[in-house]
Amino acid sequence: MSLKQSEYGKVKIIPLGGLEQIGMNMTAFEYEDSIIVVDCGLSFPSDDMLGIDLVIPDVTYLKDNIDKVKGFIITHGHEDHIGALPYVLKEVSAPIYATKLTLGLIDHKLEEHGLIKSVKRKIVKYGQSINLGCFRVEFIRTNHSIADAAALAIFSPAGTIVHTGDFKVDYTPVFGDMIDLQRFGEIGKKGVLALLCDSTNALRPGFTMSERTVGKTFDTIFSENSKSRIIVATFASNVDRVQQIINSAHKFGRKVIIEGRSMVNVIGTASELGYIKIPENTLIDIEQMKNYTDDQIVLITTGSQGESMAALSRMALSIHKKVTIKPNDTIIFSSTPIPGNEKAVSKVINELSMKGANVIFQDTHVSGHACQEEIKLIYSLLKPKYAVPVHGEFRHLKAQASIAESLGIDKENIFILSSGDVLEMNPESAEVVDKVQTGSILVDGLGVGDVGNIVLRDRQNLSENGIIIVALTLEKYSNQLLAGPDIVSRGFVYVRESENLMDEAREVVQDAIEDCLYRNISDWGKIKNVIRESLSDYLWKKMKRSPMILPIIMEVSGY
Amino acid sequence: MSLKQSEYGKVKIIPLGGLEQIGMNMTAFEYEDSIIVVDCGLSFPSDDMLGIDLVIPDVTYLKDNIDKVKGFIITHGHEDHIGALPYVLKEVSAPIYATKLTLGLIDHKLEEHGLIKSVKRKIVKYGQSINLGCFRVEFIRTNHSIADAAALAIFSPAGTIVHTGDFKVDYTPVFGDMIDLQRFGEIGKKGVLALLCDSTNALRPGFTMSERTVGKTFDTIFSENSKSRIIVATFASNVDRVQQIINSAHKFGRKVIIEGRSMVNVIGTASELGYIKIPENTLIDIEQMKNYTDDQIVLITTGSQGESMAALSRMALSIHKKVTIKPNDTIIFSSTPIPGNEKAVSKVINELSMKGANVIFQDTHVSGHACQEEIKLIYSLLKPKYAVPVHGEFRHLKAQASIAESLGIDKENIFILSSGDVLEMNPESAEVVDKVQTGSILVDGLGVGDVGNIVLRDRQNLSENGIIIVALTLEKYSNQLLAGPDIVSRGFVYVRESENLMDEAREVVQDAIEDCLYRNISDWGKIKNVIRESLSDYLWKKMKRSPMILPIIMEVSGY
Repeated sequence: MSLKQSEYGKVKIIPLGGLEQIGMNMTAFEYEDSIIVVDCGLSFPSDDMLGIDLVIPDVTYLKDNIDKVKGFIITHGHEDHIGALPYVLKEVSAPIYATKLTLGLIDHKLEEHGLIKSVKRKIVKYGQSINLGCFRVEFIRTNHSIADAAALAIFSPAGTIVHTGDFKVDYTPVFGDMIDLQRFGEIGKKGVLALLCDSTNALRPGFTMSERTVGKTFDTIFSENSKSRIIVATFASNVDRVQQIINSAHKFGRKVIIEGRSMVNVIGTASELGYIKIPENTLIDIEQMKNYTDDQIVLITTGSQGESMAALSRMALSIHKKVTIKPNDTIIFSSTPIPGNEKAVSKVINELSMKGANVIFQDTHVSGHACQEEIKLIYSLLKPKYAVPVHGEFRHLKAQASIAESLGIDKENIFILSSGDVLEMNPESAEVVDKVQTGSILVDGLGVGDVGNIVLRDRQNLSENGIIIVALTLEKYSNQLLAGPDIVSRGFVYVRESENLMDEAREVVQDAIEDCLYRNISDWGKIKNVIRESLSDYLWKKMKRSPMILPIIMEVSGY
Repeated sequence: MSLKQSEYGKVKIIPLGGLEQIGMNMTAFEYEDSIIVVDCGLSFPSDDMLGIDLVIPDVTYLKDNIDKVKGFIITHGHEDHIGALPYVLKEVSAPIYATKLTLGLIDHKLEEHGLIKSVKRKIVKYGQSINLGCFRVEFIRTNHSIADAAALAIFSPAGTIVHTGDFKVDYTPVFGDMIDLQRFGEIGKKGVLALLCDSTNALRPGFTMSERTVGKTFDTIFSENSKSRIIVATFASNVDRVQQIINSAHKFGRKVIIEGRSMVNVIGTASELGYIKIPENTLIDIEQMKNYTDDQIVLITTGSQGESMAALSRMALSIHKKVTIKPNDTIIFSSTPIPGNEKAVSKVINELSMKGANVIFQDTHVSGHACQEEIKLIYSLLKPKYAVPVHGEFRHLKAQASIAESLGIDKENIFILSSGDVLEMNPESAEVVDKVQTGSILVDGLGVGDVGNIVLRDRQNLSENGIIIVALTLEKYSNQLLAGPDIVSRGFVYVRESENLMDEAREVVQDAIEDCLYRNISDWGKIKNVIRESLSDYLWKKMKRSPMILPIIMEVSGY
């Protein structure tokens, strides 16, 4: 028995972002002395991460095993798959492998961070394989809401693992060919150990519509609104969507303006690399807009998620320098709100409507992720022994687990992994054998990881209740009160309207301090506690509020 | 011409909550010396109102015209229509008129605020009219997601105005009769000056489904999950929904437990007043749950919106004292997330799923508001001269305006009002003639209105960047630095990990102060500015962050 087991080594699958860190897509695959890392994404802060700019994965495990790390393999160019690279590469330097557009977008980031010269990068074509230690990795064409997306066939001595990346099945894609279902079938026929499949839409029945259907909607909208200026907001990275808007613009004789920093960046890169075809004399600069009438213009802009600093949001609030929304502008939201952004999007729509614009958001978007029938198709082509649903919240992973089970995969062969779980497998068995350190590193300004739970808890408290500072000066040795207590508040009440309250608060503190000094309490910690408690009691009784109370004691030598 | 115009006096419609204060439903109707106020709602704080508990309308206009105010007429018992009453009544005392259940829910509030004895209240039946100064107001039966909802026919010397309240058309309601469409027709036939109609679902085509359809879904779910404990989360105020859950429970031989404070309150009131029928021996106390097996239990609970303190959320986080979620519990969300709550609801669903529960949220809810076809029906029964869409965001009001226009109402006879607009009308003309003071009053703890924009801006800044306090003590007259500068931060960085930074910051401040004193700058305002600027520059260069900087200078006499 033990002899047979030793025929196979074991491959480890270790999500380093994932379930607890939605968006930070990053999975390590390990076999003996080789580790390869698939994707390296960042996530945006949740509501309780006050003041945080972005969140990246804790890569302690990779640092601890730096000699094994052979490279980063990136499935596509979305922020939740490439965004953490500039941060992680500073800690774990290894070559990057990706398709052409994906690498173009990564290069742009590395340039911004001054890393472009120090990191080895290699473009991989669909069908091409790269050898990385014990692994061979083949890139397989898929469809997604960004061009050049790839699934990965990871060949290891313990068997073949397929990682779909983010994908959908689009039989009529806008750019390039459809997903290489034949290759999925071929690999499946030879035997697949495990499948890591995108779960984003696993709760949605049916098939995701083709990107091309949106193009038809654009044509209809353009023809129905032939007199008005058209503004379309969409995801900067959705190059095919922008292509279709440009196609409609060209068909209806309109010039196109690209607005918003990330939109200009991505379309610039895509255009340089040949991923978007812009007919001559179609693109104009925003400065030239005044030379055209409304019916000759299409503006493609960022801000489809209601992001407060994006171009469309600034137009809505009349603080965009170059575009003023006019009555009868037709504004198309070519997107759906990402969960959590619903209210912000509504707000922008309301502002635009109040300015008289006609806002359209129906049938103007399709998802980039596979629905239930597409997921079933991939499972049926690959017929994996083990299923490891990835990419989504727990309920999405669980929905995919149900799909896998419905297709005949044994329940005990389906694994919903938490970040850091080490799933070890070979054709005979699979099991979670360990848990490595993972987590979220918060980035605030230039600080990476210096804002932790204590700081966040303070920010939360400050945001809800404000702060009261009680400052006083004591004489050294004698502990006589030389100055104060002075009371200053921020975010608590507006003092001019609450002078009585603050006067009373000062008296409460003064009494408390005098009592301390009278009782010869000289320990500053104790004095601070007494101040905090007396003031806190007073304010709760009086107002039912609990601001943060921060006593500051200064000391002056008798002289 | 002017003679003819004088035949009619003019009635004024003044929204005092409304568009800018979504949720704070409150509209004043004024004719000569009479004002009646329809509804008196509160709204919940938006994301930028940090730390605020609730928001009520500014009723300065009513206070200034207190002698005219004849009464509050309440259409139904939802918070956004009754919630501000306890606050507003303290400023503007007038009798309250409402249907039985509505008044039962109001009474509960007045008791909590100690107002029950000082406020006159009168139950009005459907079909009954009350005379209030120049107005006669008739209550008309409607359907909504709470029982006893009413539309109002407001008869004034200038003509009849109909206010629908929140409504839907339910041909097969769970409790009581369907909306009194005949009376709408009768009133319409006699001529309607203006219609104020619910716009919430004006963007949705078709008809809202009957509440009864949800009951069928419950039966199906109960029969398919006959072995597991069933937990249903819904809106506390949706008495008919609770009735249907109880009906299904009774049919399948289960006992019912009501959990969550607001649920217990509302169901208590509804039960006392006969708005819910609970079969004998069906309701049990949560303490008795242990005496029953899972398949004998249905728990009806609050928390369908993911509210962090609600019962279901506490169960999801394993901090509920009496209910522990178990694998195979069936949990039904009988609700849809209110915009803005999507993420919180997802989080609760994920937590419940991780505990192994089976979470169901499809076909388990219908809206309480009229969709496009129902809105058209009401317009067609009433055929008003003027349309004043109410209840919704701007885009919803605008959608109803389009519906009204499509039904033949002149564009210039449709008014989308902002809060405070005074729309004056008679059968000959209608026009916005004035704007009165309105706005949001923020309630934080016991403080009503003492948190304003400055405090909120400080809270925002504190929440994103934290605060650094620089404290120092100067000698009076000589301005010698006796103590400090001491630097204390909260919500900025965790100091133990950033000691170098704080040391350097201290040096920067010390240098700046010494420079001030050397240059004989004794003005504290100037010294504080220098501290603020030097530290702010340093931190921005070093970290790209801008915490609030608060210098505190104390003064000690030379002695």
